[in-house]
Amino acid sequence: MNDEFSFIRSLIAHRFVESERIEVDVGDDAAVVIPHSDRSLVMTCDTMVETVHFLRKTMSPADIGWKLLASNLSDLAAMGAVPTYALISVAVPPSWQAEEVEEIYHGIYDLAREWKVSLMGGDTVRIPEYLTLTLTLLGEVGRGEALLRSSAKPGDVVFVTGTVGDAAAGLHLLLHHPDQRFNYPALVQAHCRPNPQLHIGKWLVSTRFRPACDDISDGLAQEAWEIAEASQVCIVLDREKIPISEQLLQYAKAVGQDPFEWVWFGGEDYQLIGTVRKEYWAKLKETVKEKGFLLSMIGRVESGTPQVEVESEGIRMVLPKRGYNHFADR
Amino acid sequence: MNDEFSFIRSLIAHRFVESERIEVDVGDDAAVVIPHSDRSLVMTCDTMVETVHFLRKTMSPADIGWKLLASNLSDLAAMGAVPTYALISVAVPPSWQAEEVEEIYHGIYDLAREWKVSLMGGDTVRIPEYLTLTLTLLGEVGRGEALLRSSAKPGDVVFVTGTVGDAAAGLHLLLHHPDQRFNYPALVQAHCRPNPQLHIGKWLVSTRFRPACDDISDGLAQEAWEIAEASQVCIVLDREKIPISEQLLQYAKAVGQDPFEWVWFGGEDYQLIGTVRKEYWAKLKETVKEKGFLLSMIGRVESGTPQVEVESEGIRMVLPKRGYNHFADR
Repeated sequence: MNDEFSFIRSLIAHRFVESERIEVDVGDDAAVVIPHSDRSLVMTCDTMVETVHFLRKTMSPADIGWKLLASNLSDLAAMGAVPTYALISVAVPPSWQAEEVEEIYHGIYDLAREWKVSLMGGDTVRIPEYLTLTLTLLGEVGRGEALLRSSAKPGDVVFVTGTVGDAAAGLHLLLHHPDQRFNYPALVQAHCRPNPQLHIGKWLVSTRFRPACDDISDGLAQEAWEIAEASQVCIVLDREKIPISEQLLQYAKAVGQDPFEWVWFGGEDYQLIGTVRKEYWAKLKETVKEKGFLLSMIGRVESGTPQVEVESEGIRMVLPKRGYNHFADR
Repeated sequence: MNDEFSFIRSLIAHRFVESERIEVDVGDDAAVVIPHSDRSLVMTCDTMVETVHFLRKTMSPADIGWKLLASNLSDLAAMGAVPTYALISVAVPPSWQAEEVEEIYHGIYDLAREWKVSLMGGDTVRIPEYLTLTLTLLGEVGRGEALLRSSAKPGDVVFVTGTVGDAAAGLHLLLHHPDQRFNYPALVQAHCRPNPQLHIGKWLVSTRFRPACDDISDGLAQEAWEIAEASQVCIVLDREKIPISEQLLQYAKAVGQDPFEWVWFGGEDYQLIGTVRKEYWAKLKETVKEKGFLLSMIGRVESGTPQVEVESEGIRMVLPKRGYNHFADR
């Protein structure tokens, strides 16, 4: 670790795990922990590059750190897993001050504390340009209990958590109408400080209904396509049932944009899309109210060509399989 | 994953682990594996950035991939651990062709196969410039058996594996005298295709002598300092006993360089430096011959100010605590 960034060592010293599980902490060649013997190990990894995944002008350093961890937590939420440990690699260009890098770690820590993720190491290196961050997240899930993209079956109900499209609308706002940021706080928050749906993922596992599940990182269309292809089913979405926030509708109207461009193809909402047997749906809905979760039925699963269709006023059309491209076309 | 790099998905499909241990393979939101319940989980992470850690003119894409994994394997070797799973993140600039990225993965694979490391995911993203690679490596070690930097004790013998300084000399050669590469193949190989000392690390654990251990990624001086500080001891190295290869001596002479600049401050040798109780040293040496390992006694541990000293012809001097800086001063 570069001496200039030695503060990172003290910053990552907070531990949110029983100390007897940590055999060797940060500071040796590698960290050593004792896993729970009856649980499986879950692993994922996400990278964010300045100008490709974020801009300094739209996100604070702390927001960048928060989002880096949020995107990984969201992957674990989609598996129904509980996060445990993270390793973080930061490639820092000369244009970023050490204090700004410290802010990034504070942002990571704000969210790590919430979900009891212990930072167990990583790497800090120099790069001539473009701050680049990679986070590897480990977690645990009961043996054989992970939620899969491939378990959707014809007859299933399709559901989604929260509202979709807000993060992409928030980015549009920050890029084109930054003076409006205080009028649409939910959109800005969705872009800068997304909340991974770990509680819902864990709860979906606990129901034993074995729903199919995916997190919405690349847009509702893309993720629905992933479930359709992994499960070899046709997913039919009901356009009128997609949950859209008031702020998104208002902002879209104010700036003359089609809200569905963000709803279908906007990314980084980190909500969950899933499918579950029709007979379980009523039971899910009951518990959802008690828990205070927002869960909407947005379509159904049919047999047929693996693809995603949208139904609106009796007309069905194939939804393009188009993912999210952060700054390419906005 | 970017469509352009979809070949990565097929490339990383090779598995070197019993299939019943893999619950969810690459292709879902996260991978899920079943750990061995009686072993601890080891984790490390290293990043390599174009122009900071490697240059296209000195290393082939396959070499870069090999070295990325080698540097992580070396961390596990220093813990006495056995590697299991890797996650790889690659940020690819437009100046790199998809075929070159594929070559990088082939390089990773050449070494992954040797050590039975299964690639369980990662991320592939765009970056405007500077190919940036991050590899997170997981492994296993017996409960409480990991080798630590902090266990050196006064009276210990200091040992090192292999020869040191070769990788830095190899880099010097490739930068300044590339026409000489076929005359010093061992130096070029040390720089481009280093061999992590996993067999020795595992064997050191098996002896139950609990040696202190560190891998030489930032130079012999830096790593000896790390052990001295972590263990709060003074390490005295015997200059005449440091194992130096014939090719390094010849090359240094040919180009008029001080070989000890590379020996002390050259990095990326990925050999191991360690200390062990004096009474165990003789036993270690016996087994070493049978195993075909190269292990040299290079000094001793004393009580006193935590630092590293070099003894030569009766004179002791403090060895500067200076690490390896890839291209800064060569």
